[in-house]
Amino acid sequence: MRWIRYTFNQVTHYGIIRGDKIQQVLGDPFHGFKEEAIFRDIDKVKIEIPVLPRTFYCAGLNYSEHVIESAKKQGIEPVLPSKADIGYRANNALIAHMENVIIPKDATEKIHYEGELVVVIGKQAKHLTLENALSCVLGYTIGNDVSERTWQRSDRTFWRSKNTDTFKPMGPWIDTDFVPDEAVTTVKVNGVVKTVYKTNAMIFNVPTFLVEMTKYLTLWPGDVVWMGTDGASPDLISGDVVDIEIGGLGHLENKFIREI
Amino acid sequence: MRWIRYTFNQVTHYGIIRGDKIQQVLGDPFHGFKEEAIFRDIDKVKIEIPVLPRTFYCAGLNYSEHVIESAKKQGIEPVLPSKADIGYRANNALIAHMENVIIPKDATEKIHYEGELVVVIGKQAKHLTLENALSCVLGYTIGNDVSERTWQRSDRTFWRSKNTDTFKPMGPWIDTDFVPDEAVTTVKVNGVVKTVYKTNAMIFNVPTFLVEMTKYLTLWPGDVVWMGTDGASPDLISGDVVDIEIGGLGHLENKFIREI
Repeated sequence: MRWIRYTFNQVTHYGIIRGDKIQQVLGDPFHGFKEEAIFRDIDKVKIEIPVLPRTFYCAGLNYSEHVIESAKKQGIEPVLPSKADIGYRANNALIAHMENVIIPKDATEKIHYEGELVVVIGKQAKHLTLENALSCVLGYTIGNDVSERTWQRSDRTFWRSKNTDTFKPMGPWIDTDFVPDEAVTTVKVNGVVKTVYKTNAMIFNVPTFLVEMTKYLTLWPGDVVWMGTDGASPDLISGDVVDIEIGGLGHLENKFIREI
Repeated sequence: MRWIRYTFNQVTHYGIIRGDKIQQVLGDPFHGFKEEAIFRDIDKVKIEIPVLPRTFYCAGLNYSEHVIESAKKQGIEPVLPSKADIGYRANNALIAHMENVIIPKDATEKIHYEGELVVVIGKQAKHLTLENALSCVLGYTIGNDVSERTWQRSDRTFWRSKNTDTFKPMGPWIDTDFVPDEAVTTVKVNGVVKTVYKTNAMIFNVPTFLVEMTKYLTLWPGDVVWMGTDGASPDLISGDVVDIEIGGLGHLENKFIREI
């Protein structure tokens, strides 16, 4: 089942995808809903981010090739994370599928994509075990952890490198049946494949992160956990269209435009 | 004027403080409200956090004595921040005035308070100037950026040191008339004064942070910006009551209890 959040006639709803239609619901998948007898064509609505997160978690470093490539570019020894320390991103930066990433005027040319699997939490949870960790998960979506690498190294925090407005595309929907095990993540720029990796080749997988996090914190409905990325991105330029596909889940497409 | 968020008879409302009463409103201070002819005794309601932030910003290092004291304890040279790089905290950790901070079983004895001025954003804003920066501010409240210093140094992020459940007391209300200029922040433990500092002795003050942040990001109604702390905290133990007073604004009180 796929949940989509969309705007039609200036009102935003949740809906369930039925073929090429969306069936409108009253309510939402987190707190309860009722199906309505209203159907919209998926290409006639504005797709919104699938959820405005309560807390926006992000694993950051969680695939070995990404850590090694990044270290190589900086001329330092790669250090793989030794434990599942979760990080954060900011809601201001979120945009939906098909919205434009705006590169600030003063950004350098080091604008990179990071295609990521996103876990969407559906139920309150603390002290999860490896056996029951996935019971709090509503489903999965896709994220692009857009990064300005120069600011990432120069600033004391990731506020500007990672959380500039429009730097966090997320969507297009939440798939409740997706299983990461055999999936492949493919990132194309202008239709040309640039990065391919096994979605589940994480250093710490989804259950491990959820178990570690919930030793100290409560997960709430509407929280999201971005799981990190593998490989490396070319420098993106104005006009580039980045398409992140996770097999069996969907694809997230956004154009990059430099502010003039 | 003081805005308070509270629960009475299992329903949560916003209200306006009128002497020792709360006048209930329909709606909220961010999106519009209507005063109702319902008054509650302030000591008969459960006070809630004044807002669940859309994005939870935090300045971190923003007072020189705190940076110097912290460096001294680590035996390193103090480095004052050279620019206003904002950081983040997490909503899961928020608790209200008079709720208990729960110290996890496996935390060390290095449990510290950080009494902070909190800016509450009332209006959407981008590209603010020093002249109009405060126009987006609804008012101010108080925060306690509780920290476990061992985890703060050992973990790759601040997820556990700063964002363990209950580590972010905030409240008790939002004061729309408060002016930080001449205010003094006083932190008491069990009634004994431990830290006193000038609230506005920041390295980067409120307008400066809002101007820098909004060069790259949009502030939204309900965002909060915690402004950092000065001085140092003693190691807190189970049973300690920490009271943070900001003159003219109010005080935020929480007991610390170690999990057994």
